[in-house]
Amino acid sequence: MAYDREIVEALERIFSADTSIYQQRGFQRRIGFGERPALLNIDLANAWTRPGNPFTCEGMETIIPAVQKLNAAARAKGVPIVYTTTAYNVTDGPNSDMGLWVHKIPVEELELGTDAVAIDERIAPAPGEQVIVKKRASAFHGTYLAGFLRAHRVDTVILTGVTMAGCVRHTTEDAIAEGFRPIVVRECVGDRVAGAVEWNLFDIDAKFGDVEPLDAVLDQLANVALFNEREAGAAAGTSG
Amino acid sequence: MAYDREIVEALERIFSADTSIYQQRGFQRRIGFGERPALLNIDLANAWTRPGNPFTCEGMETIIPAVQKLNAAARAKGVPIVYTTTAYNVTDGPNSDMGLWVHKIPVEELELGTDAVAIDERIAPAPGEQVIVKKRASAFHGTYLAGFLRAHRVDTVILTGVTMAGCVRHTTEDAIAEGFRPIVVRECVGDRVAGAVEWNLFDIDAKFGDVEPLDAVLDQLANVALFNEREAGAAAGTSG
Amino acid sequence: MAYDREIVEALERIFSADTSIYQQRGFQRRIGFGERPALLNIDLANAWTRPGNPFTCEGMETIIPAVQKLNAAARAKGVPIVYTTTAYNVTDGPNSDMGLWVHKIPVEELELGTDAVAIDERIAPAPGEQVIVKKRASAFHGTYLAGFLRAHRVDTVILTGVTMAGCVRHTTEDAIAEGFRPIVVRECVGDRVAGAVEWNLFDIDAKFGDVEPLDAVLDQLANVALFNEREAGAAAGTSG
Amino acid sequence: MAYDREIVEALERIFSADTSIYQQRGFQRRIGFGERPALLNIDLANAWTRPGNPFTCEGMETIIPAVQKLNAAARAKGVPIVYTTTAYNVTDGPNSDMGLWVHKIPVEELELGTDAVAIDERIAPAPGEQVIVKKRASAFHGTYLAGFLRAHRVDTVILTGVTMAGCVRHTTEDAIAEGFRPIVVRECVGDRVAGAVEWNLFDIDAKFGDVEPLDAVLDQLANVALFNEREAGAAAGTSG
Repeated sequence: MAYDREIVEALERIFSADTSIYQQRGFQRRIGFGERPALLNIDLANAWTRPGNPFTCEGMETIIPAVQKLNAAARAKGVPIVYTTTAYNVTDGPNSDMGLWVHKIPVEELELGTDAVAIDERIAPAPGEQVIVKKRASAFHGTYLAGFLRAHRVDTVILTGVTMAGCVRHTTEDAIAEGFRPIVVRECVGDRVAGAVEWNLFDIDAKFGDVEPLDAVLDQLANVALFNEREAGAAAGTSG
Repeated sequence: MAYDREIVEALERIFSADTSIYQQRGFQRRIGFGERPALLNIDLANAWTRPGNPFTCEGMETIIPAVQKLNAAARAKGVPIVYTTTAYNVTDGPNSDMGLWVHKIPVEELELGTDAVAIDERIAPAPGEQVIVKKRASAFHGTYLAGFLRAHRVDTVILTGVTMAGCVRHTTEDAIAEGFRPIVVRECVGDRVAGAVEWNLFDIDAKFGDVEPLDAVLDQLANVALFNEREAGAAAGTSG
Repeated sequence: MAYDREIVEALERIFSADTSIYQQRGFQRRIGFGERPALLNIDLANAWTRPGNPFTCEGMETIIPAVQKLNAAARAKGVPIVYTTTAYNVTDGPNSDMGLWVHKIPVEELELGTDAVAIDERIAPAPGEQVIVKKRASAFHGTYLAGFLRAHRVDTVILTGVTMAGCVRHTTEDAIAEGFRPIVVRECVGDRVAGAVEWNLFDIDAKFGDVEPLDAVLDQLANVALFNEREAGAAAGTSG
Repeated sequence: MAYDREIVEALERIFSADTSIYQQRGFQRRIGFGERPALLNIDLANAWTRPGNPFTCEGMETIIPAVQKLNAAARAKGVPIVYTTTAYNVTDGPNSDMGLWVHKIPVEELELGTDAVAIDERIAPAPGEQVIVKKRASAFHGTYLAGFLRAHRVDTVILTGVTMAGCVRHTTEDAIAEGFRPIVVRECVGDRVAGAVEWNLFDIDAKFGDVEPLDAVLDQLANVALFNEREAGAAAGTSG
């Protein structure tokens, strides 16, 4: 995905021109970090994180270590961590669960139960962390994610993973629509084609969520109150 | 669940009085069978179909053979069959996927991967039939069911299973809201407490879907066009 | 809807038998009041609250004054109040927004913009209170309600209105599924046919939400922290 | 939004490099036109189509006449036409319906009932065509759109409007997820910043829907069977 300086500069010039329009018009506001985050690792399964698959993405040398840091920081505070993968158990005939997506992209390669759709072991879920198998791009679409987050009174979702042009973008758009503050971590997201990370982060930061550097997000997590304490408080409050 | 004739008669008297109001006011209409059905078997897993579980339901001596007939009729036409079960992989702490439901009913007993939440083998899914693990009462809530059905151009859902006061009712309400014609099969639904089957079928037939006897539904399935043929036609139409 | 003592006693006997099963099995738990409620007044528009409409319900002499008290208590704390009504702007042809529901009940009578679907003026919305026009039974289905509530960090919904066999029940089921604690106020709900209030409250209290007397809910509202103060705190937290 | 040739060429070079990766990997497939379309005109209200508003978009000299042609072609076949606008009735305090979006973009400018959020009269809805007021970017999110389309057995959505980086993109992603074939009409979509149309159409065509020229879509509409005839057929089928 190495692409020349000239192209990078061209994109930067567009973003700069667009930013002045957005700023004049009151877009690109900051949504900010709430009080009760969850960490959402999107499709960091082997089909996307390892070479040799149609779904393989670039940039894992940066993404994997950064996600490791976020996982550690979230676990230290008892913050819920949710992983997603995309997988299908029927890829043919009237019982196929691929929906219409197979008419656009090769989802027939993503077979439920195979190593390809298992979360990359370098960032393996700890016991008890949710791995949601989704069928569509958004982690919210056709899954129990929104209900899960709300029941835990989460107000903010920290997003990592792939791809920016697909699952991460759609998940971010749904997150703010559902009422959660989306924070996309700059070093933790990737794609498989040039430019897609840049322009999707640009659109998201203008309209749907805050794109923040890893260090800033780690700082915020360091300041979050321990999840369990507040959970205990909530439980006490429900003894109606 | 044997309850005395006096109570049955009391319920019948209420239903009869209510029916005359509904009929005068234009309720209790018939939604009818569409052209392209799917069969939806709700929570016919061992926790509900076998004795000794908090979720055990009554009436399996009628329900199981009736569902066997429906499965056979649906398979003969290539009609999609979807099973649901309700199961959780974390029942404690900030990663629990039980949501708030555990504050009402003992969902902590429904552990993902156990025999209790596996579909009853007497009506086992055939290879390729979907088994959707849901977290809430409705088979539509937080699942890919609506998208699955729509992608297959299903217009009608035939409903069986348990419980009438819980998952079958909520699924029926969601089905018509989502744009699918709900047909609840009288002999194929049950519950664990007296009366719940009767009053929920009464409410549903008045407002949300048609309650039909098994024979009528088998007749309708016998007249449905073979699913695959039409699917082939649709595929041809999409070669844009 | 006056029905004889014999029938009431028959229902009571069923509920009593069912309750002992539910209690043995761990159902009928209490979900309790959370920290941040909203008040949801379902379909208390003239078609339902006034005589002479197919949708007319019974019991308004109790329901209206009780909802007035809840509205006052909620407004005193800045708790969000949401009204719903059900109305359609096209009742014929390929642009109809009635969906399939017209095949079960007379929704063709509920014309958008008419007095029939306006909220009863005895419990009129105050300026700035949301009136959501829904097309289906559930106040959550096809509306912005869930996102609205989440964005205000609401954790509990207090439910009033009609009908118990339709919109109130479906809304309650969806509320707990979405991650909100449902509290149904006993004196504030009704229906148009005998028995429907009783058996639907019984099912809900067993499985989906707590049925509570008006006085208990007023007490809870009296103890809720002023909504705006906490909102201000939240806003401060988001200045990222 | 006039931007120099150099930048256009830079984008073209990126898209060309990306396309060869997508093609090798089996992406950029064609989803095709189904049998039963609906036309979806996204946010073509005055705030977006006329000068002088923070939401004003470019390109209306092309978009408006192209949408006029599509409307005429759709009306000739009785194909459902749905318009959306984005508008709020409360922009402050605990009853605000803006959700979290106001923390990113100036939705406080979009007041329900004002001329700014009314559909541009050059492409005014005909009597009986739906105008859906949405609160979020996607036309599906928090609206009755999916249920409306399913009830009319729509399988394809033709998309026009603004903005590509916001509402049109999110709606397209949701459409395929829900089980509808998205067809985005090249001449009918716009944005307010440079590049956003191009890169979002590129992402969509690779993954979520087909981007097609106006002429091709008009040809497809000319070949669609008259909507009412088939509706009549369906109605006959439902007389169960």
